Amino acid sequence: MTNSQPQEGLSGRKIVYDENGKPCRSCNTLLDFKFATGKISTKQASVKGTNATTLNSGSDEKIPHSKAYVKADPADVERLGNSSWTLLHTISANYPSNPREHQKSEMKQFLQIFSHIYPCSWCASDFEQYIRNHAPKLDSRDDFGRWMCEAHNEVNAKLNKELFDCNFWKNRWKDGWDE
Amino acid sequence: MTNSQPQEGLSGRKIVYDENGKPCRSCNTLLDFKFATGKISTKQASVKGTNATTLNSGSDEKIPHSKAYVKADPADVERLGNSSWTLLHTISANYPSNPREHQKSEMKQFLQIFSHIYPCSWCASDFEQYIRNHAPKLDSRDDFGRWMCEAHNEVNAKLNKELFDCNFWKNRWKDGWDE
Repeated sequence: MTNSQPQEGLSGRKIVYDENGKPCRSCNTLLDFKFATGKISTKQASVKGTNATTLNSGSDEKIPHSKAYVKADPADVERLGNSSWTLLHTISANYPSNPREHQKSEMKQFLQIFSHIYPCSWCASDFEQYIRNHAPKLDSRDDFGRWMCEAHNEVNAKLNKELFDCNFWKNRWKDGWDE
Repeated sequence: MTNSQPQEGLSGRKIVYDENGKPCRSCNTLLDFKFATGKISTKQASVKGTNATTLNSGSDEKIPHSKAYVKADPADVERLGNSSWTLLHTISANYPSNPREHQKSEMKQFLQIFSHIYPCSWCASDFEQYIRNHAPKLDSRDDFGRWMCEAHNEVNAKLNKELFDCNFWKNRWKDGWDE
């Protein structure tokens, strides 16, 4: 990492660099990533009102010889986070009500490996620590769904987001709101 | 499953029921799920031009006592699929260029468990079969990223979607388009 690389992004968050000193795409917002790589300046961001949503839409330009695929940006830390929570909550919502022993151990192993391979390194390490301090509750779907909701709330708290009322986890991720 | 339950949804796809005879949320589009549960009729769908996008936006109504969270619908098969591919491609894009043996075996195990616990049962079983017939290539990031792109294309082909040109997998999921 050279001295010319910024320590803090336009979002106000610290910019995360990888082991080669390059800004990490999966660990920073796209806004901060583009700022750190010199693709966008403070001035541009304030003048154009650039934010994660406008940036995330990426380019409308199609990739060569394609009718359907545009040059979309790789996922930033927020898109990756939203996608991953959607998968994890939906997995918990479809976990058996009365799991067998091999289903419990397989899910435990899945969460452990997940915490090693998740592409945002600091998120992965936070999740690994959370699992160490709060063992996944895998005796039933209800237990696991609530555990996952609480794990997500730990991250919400760190990001100064509102906590989700875990009494509603099943409406949000399994049953919907009108039954 | 009773005789009154439809076999085919408004999308033209077969409706998937779970082991209790209830329509499976994670296995059907939201449109087909609502049709199968009697929440929407053929007439409503054609009159209002209902489609997955308008349906997926869910309700604007907040959940009780919350300032931030609306009564969003649980993920349907498409949202779950998009989220999961975002995670899987990003995992492959951040896999080591020169993985150690334990990283290879951990990733292999992750993909196997993934194919057991993925909430859409028929997607999970297709993925399990794909892995059996096309062993994950885990000797390098390039190998794994391309393998994942090809696995995704197998699903694209089944859904009559355009195949993605895997020569661009790294632009799409790691480097972006302008470097």
